[in-house]
Amino acid sequence: MALLAEPKEPKIVTDTVPGPASRSALQQLAELQDTRATVLAGDYSKSVGNYLADADGNLLLDMYCQIASIPVGYNNARILAAAGSPEMATALANRPALGVFPPKDWAQMLSETLLKVRPAGLDMVFTTAHGSDANEVAFKAALMNYARKRRGVRAFTEEELASVMDNEAPGAPDVAILSFALGFHGRTFGALSATRSKAIHKLDIPAFKWPRAPFPQLQYPLDKYEAENAAEEARCLDALDQILRTNKVPVAAAIIEPIQSEGGDRHASPEFFRGVRRITQEHDVALIVDEVQTGCGATGTFWAHEQWQLPTPPDMVTFSKKMQVAGFFHTREMVPDQTYRNFNTWMGDVPRTLIARAVVEEVAERGLIEQVRETGAYMLAHLRPLAIRYHRVVGNVRGQGTFVAFDCPTPEIRAELLQLMRNEGVNMGGSGELAVRFRPMLTLTKAHVNVFVSRLQSVLNKLYQKHWPV
Amino acid sequence: MALLAEPKEPKIVTDTVPGPASRSALQQLAELQDTRATVLAGDYSKSVGNYLADADGNLLLDMYCQIASIPVGYNNARILAAAGSPEMATALANRPALGVFPPKDWAQMLSETLLKVRPAGLDMVFTTAHGSDANEVAFKAALMNYARKRRGVRAFTEEELASVMDNEAPGAPDVAILSFALGFHGRTFGALSATRSKAIHKLDIPAFKWPRAPFPQLQYPLDKYEAENAAEEARCLDALDQILRTNKVPVAAAIIEPIQSEGGDRHASPEFFRGVRRITQEHDVALIVDEVQTGCGATGTFWAHEQWQLPTPPDMVTFSKKMQVAGFFHTREMVPDQTYRNFNTWMGDVPRTLIARAVVEEVAERGLIEQVRETGAYMLAHLRPLAIRYHRVVGNVRGQGTFVAFDCPTPEIRAELLQLMRNEGVNMGGSGELAVRFRPMLTLTKAHVNVFVSRLQSVLNKLYQKHWPV
Repeated sequence: MALLAEPKEPKIVTDTVPGPASRSALQQLAELQDTRATVLAGDYSKSVGNYLADADGNLLLDMYCQIASIPVGYNNARILAAAGSPEMATALANRPALGVFPPKDWAQMLSETLLKVRPAGLDMVFTTAHGSDANEVAFKAALMNYARKRRGVRAFTEEELASVMDNEAPGAPDVAILSFALGFHGRTFGALSATRSKAIHKLDIPAFKWPRAPFPQLQYPLDKYEAENAAEEARCLDALDQILRTNKVPVAAAIIEPIQSEGGDRHASPEFFRGVRRITQEHDVALIVDEVQTGCGATGTFWAHEQWQLPTPPDMVTFSKKMQVAGFFHTREMVPDQTYRNFNTWMGDVPRTLIARAVVEEVAERGLIEQVRETGAYMLAHLRPLAIRYHRVVGNVRGQGTFVAFDCPTPEIRAELLQLMRNEGVNMGGSGELAVRFRPMLTLTKAHVNVFVSRLQSVLNKLYQKHWPV
Repeated sequence: MALLAEPKEPKIVTDTVPGPASRSALQQLAELQDTRATVLAGDYSKSVGNYLADADGNLLLDMYCQIASIPVGYNNARILAAAGSPEMATALANRPALGVFPPKDWAQMLSETLLKVRPAGLDMVFTTAHGSDANEVAFKAALMNYARKRRGVRAFTEEELASVMDNEAPGAPDVAILSFALGFHGRTFGALSATRSKAIHKLDIPAFKWPRAPFPQLQYPLDKYEAENAAEEARCLDALDQILRTNKVPVAAAIIEPIQSEGGDRHASPEFFRGVRRITQEHDVALIVDEVQTGCGATGTFWAHEQWQLPTPPDMVTFSKKMQVAGFFHTREMVPDQTYRNFNTWMGDVPRTLIARAVVEEVAERGLIEQVRETGAYMLAHLRPLAIRYHRVVGNVRGQGTFVAFDCPTPEIRAELLQLMRNEGVNMGGSGELAVRFRPMLTLTKAHVNVFVSRLQSVLNKLYQKHWPV
């Protein structure tokens, strides 16, 4: 496959995005699947680097990247080489049950990939298919460890063995996973019980009666509201402590995102997270850091929680999205006392692990984490003046690395802005009720930021002319 | 890659399986992952057709096939061609969020793959990553449809919108998914609440208080126990009706396997399943047929439930394993009334769909379903005499297609038999407490059965000499 070159700027050949070819492809798909959330039909063989091609021949600068999950560019040469290798063909054609018949080089493959980027203190890794099940296997590990600490070395009782088949205690006990208000941890039933992002994600689905702690709502700019924000974080830590002290159902683990992503790009300070670690430790509650969206370099460190300078590591760190393979890192303590307990047929995916190996190599060899820090600072430096000049539309500019967001005044204005940006050739997404989130690849450069900022400025002018004509 | 030829019989070069090279690879892996369920370290580039190669150079006739999930042979030429295609490289290197930016040919890809084998009456398909999440999205579809039928066209109430964020009713209502005793439907929290196979799968994990209906325990041989089995099935159907009539928590859906697989290869008659369909319809309860293990031809029809001759189709059919991609087929009624409700980042997997396309083509062009029927009948014809001659070890021979099993008298004898068979070069697995299950590929032939039967006879002789010497 000939490698395409990235264009200098977006190329838009239709009046609006999606254009007629995208719309026609999506209409055909609507016979087979629910397409109401679709934006456009992609042409992935023609996408390149930071640019997403669509069915109409449009080329959009992609600042959303398949919901934050393209790490190093479309049709990246190193990833394509991994994808086209004989090793990959063997892996695709012979899908193993990794927990029973792993490939003889599976340990080596993990060492060259996930273990190379393991968070400090977490030496083992459990691979899964996506972020939701990564969080769920982490929950299960925490729940089994919680039970073991109370049961000790005795065998399961007859009552435990019988009651569990009826989904009743003591075999299936009432033990909780705590999560934070507006957190998002996935869509399967356990993950969804911990998810608190939006009602529409949860309505009509039964949920475990698990507790929800408040997450700080910071005010911007941070330097202006230092005292208020510190008080808000202290309030949330007190509430966490209070819940762990008084919750009727015992809590086995707490799960938290370094930056609440689906919930609206909500940040908190390293001090806050150190407080969460301290309080969970005081209550002997396992701490799971959900790095599904923040992991793999986007915040300027490989894992966002590295920036917290924790005195002791979290018990588990989950990942997916940009890593392309999912799972969680953990200590040996989180291995259950018997086999087949935290188990499934495939236990992860060899092809996606081979892709992850190429991602990890690309990030290291091209110094992409450093680039993210520089590009991210450049983004913020260019967005902050826009927030002054176009304050009716752009508020609360915030970010770590290129994991950047701002708030619009209403969901309607945000929808208008996102559509106009697509028509100008820039693909972005929303998060929470009001935020516009940037989730570019790690390969974003200052040149891309210049392109994006000029388009944004033009769209902001249009919005002002329409809504606030002088 | 040069295609290897399948050997005429197993080749075992070590005293036992696993041999030293496998053991060493697994020991290395034990530093990184829980390896207590591992059997051997595979050498997938040297595996071929029905034969699994291991790290020691052993070649085992594989009748277990990565827990029933290899469809048409290791290193199958058509699958390798799909795996090595430029289309595959593009799909691997550019993982889309299929619900938002699907590839422009995604509808065509689905039409050439999953839609080609869709069960009668089910025209839409939702793709996922594995069997557990296939069942969970089917549960969610049923639960949302259940709520819609009661809510009608009115908007969500303030109370629903607020309570759901606390995981409380009415937003997160107490509604159940019914499953059957000894059924297995996966390991994530929702799927696990429906799973009733073994205590060890469920212990220490909170579960929804969902009801469990009895599944028939048939006696063998079937022709001898016709009246008893009919009575047993009638008893189970009555119990199902009774639960749906009286269960405190309303039931939105029932999920059932055509053959209970992890639960011990438990079969029931087409009449029983027609009864389940009739009763669920009477109670307006959605019927989900879990074909994760039975689907893709192993029972002699593409979907096992085709053999039931249902007057009306099930509401949903889930799949994974041999299909290599997972998901569920459904009617348009199961699409929620708003978007983003049954949704996630990846919504399935293009590379695995391309593999599934090759699987479906291979099955059709080689007439493998017909072959499964013939080979399955041949297997049963050879196993039934062994069950007479070696009745102390081999009991209750049963099967549909090559989805065949027999029972051992104790778990210990079964473990001994499986180990001896591996040492003789035949890889098999257990299911439930006592069953030995055969889950060969669709490519199994009578010649393979001859190889396997001669090995089994030799192992049975050894077991008799040891335990029941004359």
